[in-house]
Amino acid sequence: MALLEISPSYAGSRALPPNDLSSRPINPLLAFKNRRPSLPCSARRIPRILCSVSPNQVQAPVLSATPAGATIKRECFGVFCTTYDLKAADKTKSWKGLINIAVSGAAGMISNHLLFKLASGEVFGPDQPIALKLLGSERSFQALEGVAMELEDSLYPLLREVSIGKDPYEVFQDAEWALLIGAKPRGPGMERAGLLDINGQIFAEQGKALNDVASRNVKVIVVGNPCNTNALICLKNAPNIPAKNFHALTRLDENRAKCQLALKAGVFYDKVSNMTIWGNHSTTQVPDFLNAKINGMPVTEVITDVKWLKEEFTERVQKRGGVLIQKWGRSSAASTAVSIVDAIRSLITPTPDGDWFSSGVYSTGNPYGIAEDIVFSMPCRSKGDGDYELAKDVIFDDYLRERIKKTEAELLAEKRCVAHLTGEGNAYCDLPEDTMLPGEQ
Amino acid sequence: MALLEISPSYAGSRALPPNDLSSRPINPLLAFKNRRPSLPCSARRIPRILCSVSPNQVQAPVLSATPAGATIKRECFGVFCTTYDLKAADKTKSWKGLINIAVSGAAGMISNHLLFKLASGEVFGPDQPIALKLLGSERSFQALEGVAMELEDSLYPLLREVSIGKDPYEVFQDAEWALLIGAKPRGPGMERAGLLDINGQIFAEQGKALNDVASRNVKVIVVGNPCNTNALICLKNAPNIPAKNFHALTRLDENRAKCQLALKAGVFYDKVSNMTIWGNHSTTQVPDFLNAKINGMPVTEVITDVKWLKEEFTERVQKRGGVLIQKWGRSSAASTAVSIVDAIRSLITPTPDGDWFSSGVYSTGNPYGIAEDIVFSMPCRSKGDGDYELAKDVIFDDYLRERIKKTEAELLAEKRCVAHLTGEGNAYCDLPEDTMLPGEQ
Repeated sequence: MALLEISPSYAGSRALPPNDLSSRPINPLLAFKNRRPSLPCSARRIPRILCSVSPNQVQAPVLSATPAGATIKRECFGVFCTTYDLKAADKTKSWKGLINIAVSGAAGMISNHLLFKLASGEVFGPDQPIALKLLGSERSFQALEGVAMELEDSLYPLLREVSIGKDPYEVFQDAEWALLIGAKPRGPGMERAGLLDINGQIFAEQGKALNDVASRNVKVIVVGNPCNTNALICLKNAPNIPAKNFHALTRLDENRAKCQLALKAGVFYDKVSNMTIWGNHSTTQVPDFLNAKINGMPVTEVITDVKWLKEEFTERVQKRGGVLIQKWGRSSAASTAVSIVDAIRSLITPTPDGDWFSSGVYSTGNPYGIAEDIVFSMPCRSKGDGDYELAKDVIFDDYLRERIKKTEAELLAEKRCVAHLTGEGNAYCDLPEDTMLPGEQ
Repeated sequence: MALLEISPSYAGSRALPPNDLSSRPINPLLAFKNRRPSLPCSARRIPRILCSVSPNQVQAPVLSATPAGATIKRECFGVFCTTYDLKAADKTKSWKGLINIAVSGAAGMISNHLLFKLASGEVFGPDQPIALKLLGSERSFQALEGVAMELEDSLYPLLREVSIGKDPYEVFQDAEWALLIGAKPRGPGMERAGLLDINGQIFAEQGKALNDVASRNVKVIVVGNPCNTNALICLKNAPNIPAKNFHALTRLDENRAKCQLALKAGVFYDKVSNMTIWGNHSTTQVPDFLNAKINGMPVTEVITDVKWLKEEFTERVQKRGGVLIQKWGRSSAASTAVSIVDAIRSLITPTPDGDWFSSGVYSTGNPYGIAEDIVFSMPCRSKGDGDYELAKDVIFDDYLRERIKKTEAELLAEKRCVAHLTGEGNAYCDLPEDTMLPGEQ
């Protein structure tokens, strides 16, 4: 699902701070929170917040016209730089506190849909003000400014801060959510092992940055491919953040599977529940029709065409992205963004009784007999507190077990490919086939 | 703002119905509602609803598993073809009745943002199920199928029908909202007069179609450029629909103007109110700082830099689209979609006391002394019933009057250019300069 190219120089080293920032005063609050012991003090940077006007275009603040308690952050400019005391205004005093949401690949098409959903209140609710922290690359930086301009022009009341940057150590500062969408797309002739290595380096770096500067309970959703193993690399590089907080996005697969079952059964998609995607976000993934339900009944009782379930269903789910590119000429940015919204909402809203949702999560301690220490998509339930537990009442048959074994074997092989990035020694890569989903990069 | 190219053959003639529909039974309800006396009975068509599977992939409906009252529409296929009696299910019985929303240019980028907002409930509310009727061209038809697939995969509970088509007489059937986004972009060397003529023909045809088949109280928002004169042509070709129901979108201009005033004053954009865009959606438009307010105070009292207000403010508003293309490499599809949502919401939500919003509306009967019989952006208020009244308590000075005269003169000249399309005789075109907004086509 990766859309945004991150320049290779990005992963290996971090550029020096831009000259125009070096003379600015260091915000003592941010300096205090900076946990990077490896960097000399002079290299500590303050987040760079950019909007669309330069400081000399802003008239001196009209203090008589601003609400009581207003403070102006001097190190930034633009409409998102004026911070209000939300408690002081009638309209906003009942709002929750501001939360920081970091998004990588922020200039790509998936983000172009997602950011506006986040800003609208559709995801976190109408009383949750948000700060968007957008991570881009050297190449995408101008585009990021464009994104920030469109966010300004949208006048979303809940969107109180937008900052853009190229350094994850700045952008992830105090992030309570990190939506990691950016990844390098596969170049011509590049093998999956090469892709794993290049993107793995990006996610290792981002894991370290999260570990150093993000909220101690940050929730991380990895979208950039190969997302399961990227998520594993990321969590291994962030030992101070609970491994349980890392997710690999398999929600679009779940949504597509629900839609295909609904189409086959001739019912509306809201009648399909308990849809599990097991394993990797790749062609070895297992959309599970054994446990899924339609109108509360087992799918296998509603759809009696077993041949279709075994031979066509999974293929239909997986080919969806490819068919879409063929018809639409673009990848499924809009529905991917919708599925990220669904994934977040599933963690902040109690799961309906008896139902569950799929997410690629850390497998250690799972009750299904799946290998430990990989990121594996499994059925989850949440109380709506951002956390989850694995679903009970899941059944298996030989057919399901056999397919789960295959995707498990693939994830274990991917793990061996990136051992150098997870601190587990030398990598040994023997991926036998290309299992990238059609329509993805 | 036009993104989607409509092939020239589209406007002049309507293709014959596709063969695969000719043998299907005519839905008596739709045949009854078809108001096209000029067409022989054999040419009357039923709406073509397409999703992503062919009928033979759908298993016979499992009646025991469907809710009471379920009916299957035989003339269509796909997940949006199964119509439920929403009153029969607990979850949906308190919902309002389904409304039909037609969108032209549905395969373009603005729509790609807008359709998902409509489907999510963000626009019409969480208890308003909707049917999306998407109008595309011969060229965009496959892309339209892709859009429908992504809508399927998004599993929006409120989205109950999606139909796609190339004929406005089918797609606009019973539409309660028509969002006319599609227009032909200007080709190399094409003059504004040529663009007015080509797009005028499209909007004349769409006006006729709305007149014949849409709801008698359909609300029409024209986004495709030149949107004011396109809206005029459209309403002139729809004599049975109140002229007051037609709008030309100037809401993005209003939003940008609010943002620029907020930036200059150093306040958050929600403090800016009473922002009027007067006149044409072109460079002659007048963002009105005389009547606008910041924190309830006249802008001219808060921003004392008169030179900036007179010389820079309007330019900043108008250059926004151009700057964005430069930075972002694409036009402002996302913020345009947001502004369409704002425009709809302003008509279905009561306007806050003392405030107003801008919309290009039919000028006949206006209290501001603006020429009658053109579509002119003016300050409006709504009770939230879909209708509006023009704002009172508007003040003018010589500077404002003079600028309004200029944009009025332009709209009168554009009107003379399209006289052949509004039934007012021969066109005479003397547009002196190119007033297309930067970044628009």
